[in-house]
Amino acid sequence: MLTEKYEDTFGLMYDLKDQGGELLSLRYDLTVPFARYLAMNKLKKMKRYQVGKVWRRESPALVQGRYREFCQCDFDIAGEFDPMIPDAECLKIMCEILSGLQLGDFLIKVNDRRVVDGMFAVCGVPEDKFRTICTSMDKLDKMPWEDVRHEMVAKKGLAPEVADRIGEYVQCHGGISLVEKLSKDPRLSQSQLALQGLGDLKLLFEYLTLFGIAEKISFDLSLARGLDYYTGVIYEAVLLQSPGWAGKEALNVGSVAAGGRYDGLVAQFDPKGHNVPCVGLSIGVERIFCLVEQKMKASGEKVRTIETQVFVATPQRNFLRERLKIITELWDAGIKAEMLYKNNPKLLTQLLYCEKTDIPLMVIIGEQEQKEGVIKLRSVASREEVTINRESLVAEIQKRLSES
Amino acid sequence: MLTEKYEDTFGLMYDLKDQGGELLSLRYDLTVPFARYLAMNKLKKMKRYQVGKVWRRESPALVQGRYREFCQCDFDIAGEFDPMIPDAECLKIMCEILSGLQLGDFLIKVNDRRVVDGMFAVCGVPEDKFRTICTSMDKLDKMPWEDVRHEMVAKKGLAPEVADRIGEYVQCHGGISLVEKLSKDPRLSQSQLALQGLGDLKLLFEYLTLFGIAEKISFDLSLARGLDYYTGVIYEAVLLQSPGWAGKEALNVGSVAAGGRYDGLVAQFDPKGHNVPCVGLSIGVERIFCLVEQKMKASGEKVRTIETQVFVATPQRNFLRERLKIITELWDAGIKAEMLYKNNPKLLTQLLYCEKTDIPLMVIIGEQEQKEGVIKLRSVASREEVTINRESLVAEIQKRLSES
Repeated sequence: MLTEKYEDTFGLMYDLKDQGGELLSLRYDLTVPFARYLAMNKLKKMKRYQVGKVWRRESPALVQGRYREFCQCDFDIAGEFDPMIPDAECLKIMCEILSGLQLGDFLIKVNDRRVVDGMFAVCGVPEDKFRTICTSMDKLDKMPWEDVRHEMVAKKGLAPEVADRIGEYVQCHGGISLVEKLSKDPRLSQSQLALQGLGDLKLLFEYLTLFGIAEKISFDLSLARGLDYYTGVIYEAVLLQSPGWAGKEALNVGSVAAGGRYDGLVAQFDPKGHNVPCVGLSIGVERIFCLVEQKMKASGEKVRTIETQVFVATPQRNFLRERLKIITELWDAGIKAEMLYKNNPKLLTQLLYCEKTDIPLMVIIGEQEQKEGVIKLRSVASREEVTINRESLVAEIQKRLSES
Repeated sequence: MLTEKYEDTFGLMYDLKDQGGELLSLRYDLTVPFARYLAMNKLKKMKRYQVGKVWRRESPALVQGRYREFCQCDFDIAGEFDPMIPDAECLKIMCEILSGLQLGDFLIKVNDRRVVDGMFAVCGVPEDKFRTICTSMDKLDKMPWEDVRHEMVAKKGLAPEVADRIGEYVQCHGGISLVEKLSKDPRLSQSQLALQGLGDLKLLFEYLTLFGIAEKISFDLSLARGLDYYTGVIYEAVLLQSPGWAGKEALNVGSVAAGGRYDGLVAQFDPKGHNVPCVGLSIGVERIFCLVEQKMKASGEKVRTIETQVFVATPQRNFLRERLKIITELWDAGIKAEMLYKNNPKLLTQLLYCEKTDIPLMVIIGEQEQKEGVIKLRSVASREEVTINRESLVAEIQKRLSES
C-alpha cells in the first residue's frame, strides 16, 4: 500500500525486516494512514487532529529542525460537504496556530492543483512532463525564475516559449482580485479545470474574509506541492522574514505548515472504491520548536520545565518523616509538591534548588515549628517568610496559588 | 545494544531492514532508551514521565488489551539518593493513578530482587537455575503452587526438598510484620543479600505508611518480575477482583502497572561505566483503556469525544455567511464552536446533531433575528430559548459557560 501511495519517495521509507511473512514499513506521514482508517472503518465523515511520529530516511540536517524521526501534527476534515467551507476552516486553524505561537509575521501561499494542471495544459506542457515540470516549479522559493527556467528548458527539454508562458503565470501572486483577473485570462480560461479551481478559490477568499484572515493568504501560482494525492486547493505557510531574534544566522526552516484537499485517496483503500473527500493540514513540530528555542535563547526568556508549586524543606537533620507527612497532605490536596530525596539535605541546597527551578513557594518545617504547631511559608521570589498554623497550611497554599 | 539488553526477548523485537548500513530495531520499552539517554547526556539525576509507543512481536490477543504496537506510560527517578525515598514515591504515584482511574480495588505486590536471589540461595537452588526457577515462580499468579512445583521438579530438575523450601516462602504475603518476621527467619537470615533487601523493604513500608498507602501494598515473596535489569525493589499492581461491571466475562488483564529499581543499567551505556541508580514504573495504557471501556459500556456511561461548547445554527436558507461571521467571533473569543459545513442545513439536522454530541449551547440566527439585531440562544438539554442582543452574544455565552 505504502509503496503505491508514495511512489516518488519510495527510497525514503524505513522498511522492517521480514521476520514472519509480513512486509511492513514505518509510517511516512499521517495522511495516508488516516485515509486508510476511514476506508477500513467505513466512516463517511470525521474531523480529527493527531500528533504522532513519522519516519523518513533523509539525510538529516539538524540546523533546519529536520530529523529522520520527527513529529507531525495533523488536522483533517473528511466528508462530503459544500465547497470550500472545510477548506477555509483549515486555513483559519493554520492561522490561529501560527499566530498563537508568535513566530513573527507569516504568509500562507494558496493555489489549486487544478489551476496548476490547467496552466500547464494551456501553456503547452506535454502531459507526460507535468510531474517533472511541477518539481522544478516547486524550487521557486529557493531559486530565481531564471534558474528554474533554465532547468525546465535545458535539463527537462521544455520548449523555451512554453517555459516563458509558465514564467508569466508563476510570478503572479495576490488576493481575490488576481483570482478574478485570471478567470478572465484569455489563455488560462480555455482550461475548464483551471476555471473550476479559480471558481473555488474565489469562494475560498470570500470565506477567508469572513474569518478575518484574508490578509494572511496569498494566491500564488508558483505553489505546486510535491505529493501526488492533492486534487484541489493546496497551501503552505512560510515565515515572512528571518525573525529579528534569530540574529545573524537567519534560519532557513522552509515551510512550517502545509496541506490541501485530497479527494481521491480514501477510495484507493476502499474495496468497493467508495470515496470520502478530505482536506487537511500538517504542522512541522520540530521546525517550529527549533524557531521557538532560538527565539527564547535570543530574548533570554526562561521556560520552566517543571510545574512544581511548593517545595517542602527543612533546616533540621532527621526530619524526613515530617517532610513526608507534609508532602502527602499537599499531594492529596492536588498541590504539585516536591522535596529532596535526602535524609539530611542542607537548607542552602534546598533554597538554591527552588530559585534555580522557579518554584514559587517553600514550606519550611523545623523542630521549633513542630513543637509550636506552626510552619513557615516562604515566597521564593520575594524571600518573605510568614509563620502560620500547621493546620491551615493546605488552605493557605491554595489561597496563595489561586491569587497568583 | 538492544539484543544485549533484552537477551530473552530477542525474538520479540521488530528489526528494520538494513537499508543503508544501519542495524535498527523498534523500541521495545521506554526504560532502556531512558537509561541510554542518561548515559549519553551524562545526566546524574532526572525525574520524568514519558508516554510513547513500543513494539513487540507477540501473538496479539485483543481481548486482553494486548497489542503488538502499544502505548506505555513511564515514570522514573534517576539519581543517587537516600534509600527508598524515590522508591516510595513511585508506589505513591502508582496508587494515585490507579485510584484516580477508579478501576475498582487494587493491590500492589512488592518484593525485592535481593530477597528473591537470597531465598533461592538459602533454599539450595543451584545458581545456574536461578533464572529458570524465577520464570516458573512468575506463573504463580496464574496457576496454583502444586503445578508450579511440578514444573520446577519434573521439568527443570529441581530437587523436591528445594522446591518445598521455596514453596514455604512464596506462599507468604503480608505487610511490614512479614518483613520483620522474615528478617529473623533462621534460614533466610543467612543470606546477607536477603537481609539487605528486607532492611530496605522495612524502610519502604515505613514511608508508605507516612504516604497513607501501606494498606494497598502487599509484600509478596512470589513476585519475581521477568526482566533482567532489576536490582532492588520490584512491584506489580493487580486488580483485586474481576470488577462487577465486567459482567459474566471477567477480564483477565494481568498486571496493569509494574516497575522496580534498576541500579546497573545506565552504567552499561556509559563508556566509562559511570552509574546512575534508577527506579521507575510503567503503566499499561491499553489494558487500562480496555477496562475503562468495559466499565463505561456496562454502566451505560457516555463519554463526549468532542469538546464543542456552542453550535451555530440557522433555520434559514443562504445564511452561511452570517454563520461564518458568528463562528469567527466565538472562535476569536476562545469559545469552542462548531457548525455544519453546508450552505443550507435543515434546522432539525442541526438540533439532532447537538443532542447526539451533547453540545450544551446553540446559537440560532435567522432573517428575522438579523433584522432586529438580536440572536437566539438555546440550551440543548432544557430546550429553553432566549433572545438576546446580537452584540452581547459572546459575553452572554462566556457567562453561561463559566456558570456551568
